[in-house]
Order: sequence, then structure tokens, then C-alpha cells
Amino acid sequence: VSGHVWVNGAFDGRIDPSDRGLALGDGVFDTLVAFGRIPFAGDRHLARLTGQAETIGIPCDPAMVRRGWEAVLARSEAEHVILRTTVTRGVAGRGLWPAASSDPTVIVSATPWARNLLSQPARLVTSSIRRNAASPTSHLKALGYLDNVLAAREAAAAGATDALLLNTDGNVACTAIANVFAVAGDMLLTPPVEDGVLAGIMRGLVLETAAQAGLAATERSLLYDEIRDAEAVFLANSVRFLCPAETLDGHRLGAGRAEVVQALAAAIYVQVREECGVDPRDVA
Amino acid sequence: VSGHVWVNGAFDGRIDPSDRGLALGDGVFDTLVAFGRIPFAGDRHLARLTGQAETIGIPCDPAMVRRGWEAVLARSEAEHVILRTTVTRGVAGRGLWPAASSDPTVIVSATPWARNLLSQPARLVTSSIRRNAASPTSHLKALGYLDNVLAAREAAAAGATDALLLNTDGNVACTAIANVFAVAGDMLLTPPVEDGVLAGIMRGLVLETAAQAGLAATERSLLYDEIRDAEAVFLANSVRFLCPAETLDGHRLGAGRAEVVQALAAAIYVQVREECGVDPRDVA
Repeated sequence: VSGHVWVNGAFDGRIDPSDRGLALGDGVFDTLVAFGRIPFAGDRHLARLTGQAETIGIPCDPAMVRRGWEAVLARSEAEHVILRTTVTRGVAGRGLWPAASSDPTVIVSATPWARNLLSQPARLVTSSIRRNAASPTSHLKALGYLDNVLAAREAAAAGATDALLLNTDGNVACTAIANVFAVAGDMLLTPPVEDGVLAGIMRGLVLETAAQAGLAATERSLLYDEIRDAEAVFLANSVRFLCPAETLDGHRLGAGRAEVVQALAAAIYVQVREECGVDPRDVA
Repeated sequence: VSGHVWVNGAFDGRIDPSDRGLALGDGVFDTLVAFGRIPFAGDRHLARLTGQAETIGIPCDPAMVRRGWEAVLARSEAEHVILRTTVTRGVAGRGLWPAASSDPTVIVSATPWARNLLSQPARLVTSSIRRNAASPTSHLKALGYLDNVLAAREAAAAGATDALLLNTDGNVACTAIANVFAVAGDMLLTPPVEDGVLAGIMRGLVLETAAQAGLAATERSLLYDEIRDAEAVFLANSVRFLCPAETLDGHRLGAGRAEVVQALAAAIYVQVREECGVDPRDVA
């Protein structure tokens, strides 16, 4: 695997154990899909990644990340791949206070994307873990994903496919791997970033595309009961696109408006085709 | 540096970029001081580390960790060192759901310990970041330390040496790098683990040793005002031992009972001498 991992310009691909990304989770990452070796929504992913790195004081050159993407895509045997990009504060001595001079570590890797990742129905259970609305880290795709890992393990142990996380105020935040949307009448509802939510790239595309499916997109705090009682609930994730949520804590979720959710997903597939020349549904 | 890092039995010391410790902060760590190459409170550190690994479903063999400690200490040029041990879920494919069969990664490294780390006075500012009392990760020494890194950066920007973190309920939790204690009369107060606090090894030693200094140790939720108005406030950390807190948000903290805090610290130094044959205060 590591032979296909690009680290700071080279494919020798091993990490120094003193890297703050490993030692302290001191970094951010991004996951996107490149169809036909073209990153879908690459500009948005790159802007979010470098912006989040800057937010935590890590200088990240977008041109460097693009070079990593190009190098990994050129070497990839698969045509459609999940590109993961990691940016850390780099190698430093121990302790929280980093040397100001450390160079960031940029890591890019690819794994094949498969059509069966698309639109998988989700069965949710509510996690015992709350998302911290009072931490900037909750808004970042930060390396410290242990809460999500533990929530995913809880879900698996309960026979579910993903976990719904409420935030520390008791409102709906997201799942372990996706943003959450609810359809109520002509409204498409999703929690605001301030509720401890990552500004997912697929979330942003859904919000911008909703009107094409006749839905009025609204970001506002959502109660658990609003998810449970919605006409339709779906998850948004840059690898899996839009996935219908079928159950929540054993309760069957609304199955109405399926055609609206499908229209919304289709409008996003069209954007992929326009940008990458491939419709994700047509991938073998 | 990496030549002195022990990774799963060898000193070649580089990490696979697919290691879940780096990719997802999926692991825990420990920091202790070995005086005269003998880990102080090694049994406690080892029990907490392996217990926390088990809590998140990572099998961690204590004998393996001890082998790492011994190998690193045998190779160390410095006699008194900070030993850092990291245990991750190991190398795995992408995604949150790990293959059940992955072997953990155990990393041990040493850096010299210096006497000037002892009892450094602290100037605190309250962080804007809250510690998540509703996450199991808050009780773990998990790799995802970004909240602490950002809090430490806030503190440094404000000219302080460390940041006080309240929890999501508004009570006192800890600092970016230490547990917090307040002296009020004959009471020694510290927040309970349930308030989003790591069960620090030095914290445990302080609680057990308090009676020797005439203090009744009590774990209970603490208000910000109780810290501000305490007769004395100190921080506890396994590398720095007991450090008096001098200011909080520019307010001068209580300077009373200094002799009691010093007696408590001295009683812990005696434990180091008994266990390791070295008094930390006598290190050159």
C-alpha cells in the first residue's frame, strides 16, 4: 500500500513517528473522489483543506497538494479513486507548543472507488457520544476521529450501519461519516456548522442544488424528533453521495419524497459528468 | 531522532501512512519520566495505557510495551528521560470500520528530562474551547489532541503559559497539559473524571498523597470562581510534577498554603527516590 502513498513529493511513503499528525492528531484531512482521474469538486475540497489548515496555523500550499494529487492519479491503476489528502503540522519535538519553523507534512493516497458505495441505504442508531458544539475541532476535518470511530463501533455492535450524533446541546449534528438532511414539505433542513458540524463538500453541493429539485434549503438546528418524523432523511458524503436513511433506533424513517431525493442526487451526478466526463452511476 | 524510536520491536522507526493512529487519531498514548532509567510509577502508567487501549477495542500486550521501554532505555544516552508510548489500532484500509484482525502499532521514544521542567509556575488564561464531558475520548489520553494544541496556542498568544479548559457544562476540567487542584482550608479539590477529565497518573498520586500533607482530597465539580478564589491552585502533570498556578485571566491567584503544596510535592519526590533511587530535585 505505502508504495502508492505520496509524502511531501516522494513515493517512499513512510512517516516519521515524531510527526505531530500522529503524536497529537495535529492536522486536517480531506477525502474526495476522482472520476476518470479528475478530482470531483477539487477546487472546493482544496479550498476547504487549505483553509482549515490555515485556521489551525498550518501553512499549506495548494499547489503542493495539487502536485500530490496529480502524482498519485498518474500512478493509479484504477481510473476512479478515492483520494485522501492529509496535512499535518510536521515533525517536531515533544510537547504541545510547536516550533514555529516546522514544515507541514502533506500525504496523498488513493484507493479504488466502487459504484456500490453509491447511495447505500443507512440504518442509524443514536450514539451515546455527543458532538462538541463548543470546540472549533468539531467544524474541522481534523485527524482526531476517535469519537467517530467509537460511534461507528457502537453502531456496528447494534447491527446498524452508521451512528447519529447529537451535539452537546442535544440537537442533531451529523453521523459518524456523513452530514444529515431532512425533507419536510418543500423544505430541506440540515444543522448549521455552529452546531458542531463539518462543512462537508457534498453537504454544500446539496444545499446549492436543492432548488433544482424544488426544495428550499435551510440550515437550522434540528431536534431528534424532526429527524424521526421527517418525510425523508438522507445522508451526504463525498464518497457515497446521497444515502437514504431507512431506520433510526429501530424506528422506520419516512419513505416519502423518494423521487425528490433521487432528483437531487441525479442533479449532482450531472455535475460530476460535466466536470469529470463520467456519471458515477455508469461506473462498472 | 527516529533512530531512537522503537516501533513494534525494531528501531527502524518509520510509520506506515495508513496507520490508523495517523489517519484517524485511533489510539492512545502515555508520557512518564524514567529516573536513572527506571520508569517512575511505571505499573500505573502501563495499567492505564493498556486499559484505555482495551476500552477502545485495541488489544495491547503490557509485556510488549515493557519490552519497548527496556529497549529504548537501554539505548538512551540520557539517564533521566521522558518516555512516550503510543498505541494505535495499526495499519488498515480506509474508512472508520477497521478490519478486526489488524495488529496494533506500539511506539516508544525517549527525550531527555531536565530538572527545569519541575514546578514551573503557571500563568493561565481560560480557553474559548470547552472540554466535552459527553465524550469518552475526554477521559482518554487519546491521540486527538488538537483541542489542547489550539488551547495552548490561544494561551501563548495571550502571553500565558497554559490554558484552563472548562467543560461543556461550564465547570472546570483541566488545562491543556495538566490536571487542576485547588486548596480550600483543609480540602484539596479536583474535578472528577466524569467532568471530561483525564485520570492523570500524577493526579492519582496527588489524591493518594494529600493526607500526608494534612489535606482531605475530594473529587467534585469545580466552578471557575472556586479556582479564582482558592487559597492555592496548582497543576499536576507526570513530567512537571506539581506546578503552582500564579495567575488566571490576569487575576492573581491565592498564594497561601505554599508550604502545604510544597510538602505534598516533597512527599511525591520521596516516592520517586524510593522507586527510582533518584530525587528529581537532585538531577543536575
